[in-house]
Amino acid sequence: LGHRTPRDVRITTHVGLVARAFGARKIYIPGGGKNIKKSIERVVERFGGAFEVDTEMKARAVIRKHKGVCLHLTMYGEKLHSSLDEITERSEGKDKLVIVGAEKVPRYIYDLADLNISVGNQPHSEIAALAIFMDRLTNGGWVELDFPGGMKVVPHRDRKIVVKKTL
Amino acid sequence: LGHRTPRDVRITTHVGLVARAFGARKIYIPGGGKNIKKSIERVVERFGGAFEVDTEMKARAVIRKHKGVCLHLTMYGEKLHSSLDEITERSEGKDKLVIVGAEKVPRYIYDLADLNISVGNQPHSEIAALAIFMDRLTNGGWVELDFPGGMKVVPHRDRKIVVKKTL
Repeated sequence: LGHRTPRDVRITTHVGLVARAFGARKIYIPGGGKNIKKSIERVVERFGGAFEVDTEMKARAVIRKHKGVCLHLTMYGEKLHSSLDEITERSEGKDKLVIVGAEKVPRYIYDLADLNISVGNQPHSEIAALAIFMDRLTNGGWVELDFPGGMKVVPHRDRKIVVKKTL
Repeated sequence: LGHRTPRDVRITTHVGLVARAFGARKIYIPGGGKNIKKSIERVVERFGGAFEVDTEMKARAVIRKHKGVCLHLTMYGEKLHSSLDEITERSEGKDKLVIVGAEKVPRYIYDLADLNISVGNQPHSEIAALAIFMDRLTNGGWVELDFPGGMKVVPHRDRKIVVKKTL
């Protein structure tokens, strides 16, 4: 939410890459434009998997069309770490729409969201909030995700190892 | 590492805010300049606590001067989620210097680091990597951190509540 070009291009690209790396299927960037879409899609092409980028649909429409649960990450919401069980219970088995904002988030988002969740109550970063939220909600399960068709990094304690995967 | 002005100002500011929010005492931003220093310090002033920003010291000097353990976060390193016990064991009770890079990290960092650790092997974000690393290493303990002297956000499920704390 609230992406502005060109100010937010790098921040929003990170939001997109985090969403993909931690298991999201798609990102909506209202008002995002072509450059941001391309820069995320370039990574998808190189590193594999399917991940969609929509920069056309407006925020309200995305929320209205969404069937499932709508989770808004904000430093003002209830604490993730102490309400993880409730969040898990209320979102399990449902399609999850996670909202993060690049700037002041309009009031209607707080009202439309099923849950307003804080990853810490100190200012930090929507990128960090999204990452920790997805890490905790999946209980680290994203680590085992597969991204077919792309380059693959093999974890190693002191070497860079990259292999080319084939489909 | 590798901060470039003005390209990285917002990204590096997020790195600084994440470091502070999750419990670091200080950030070194080699080549950071005055603007980035000010923009982080403004948040420290408003939201309290003590957090230092050094933009003068060079990376090699920071690492050489550091007494304790040096942890380099990179998508090529060994997996955080499966080596958390070892990382905890090797860093417990020691001052921790955590390194994240804004761009291609020079080879000497891999060699000087005590541990090269990956938070996922897909490209995502140094901001996300730092946040998840600190969250996991402290086992969520950062949530209870106190930042004396600043404004305080009170977590709430559908209201923004901010109170002014006094020392």
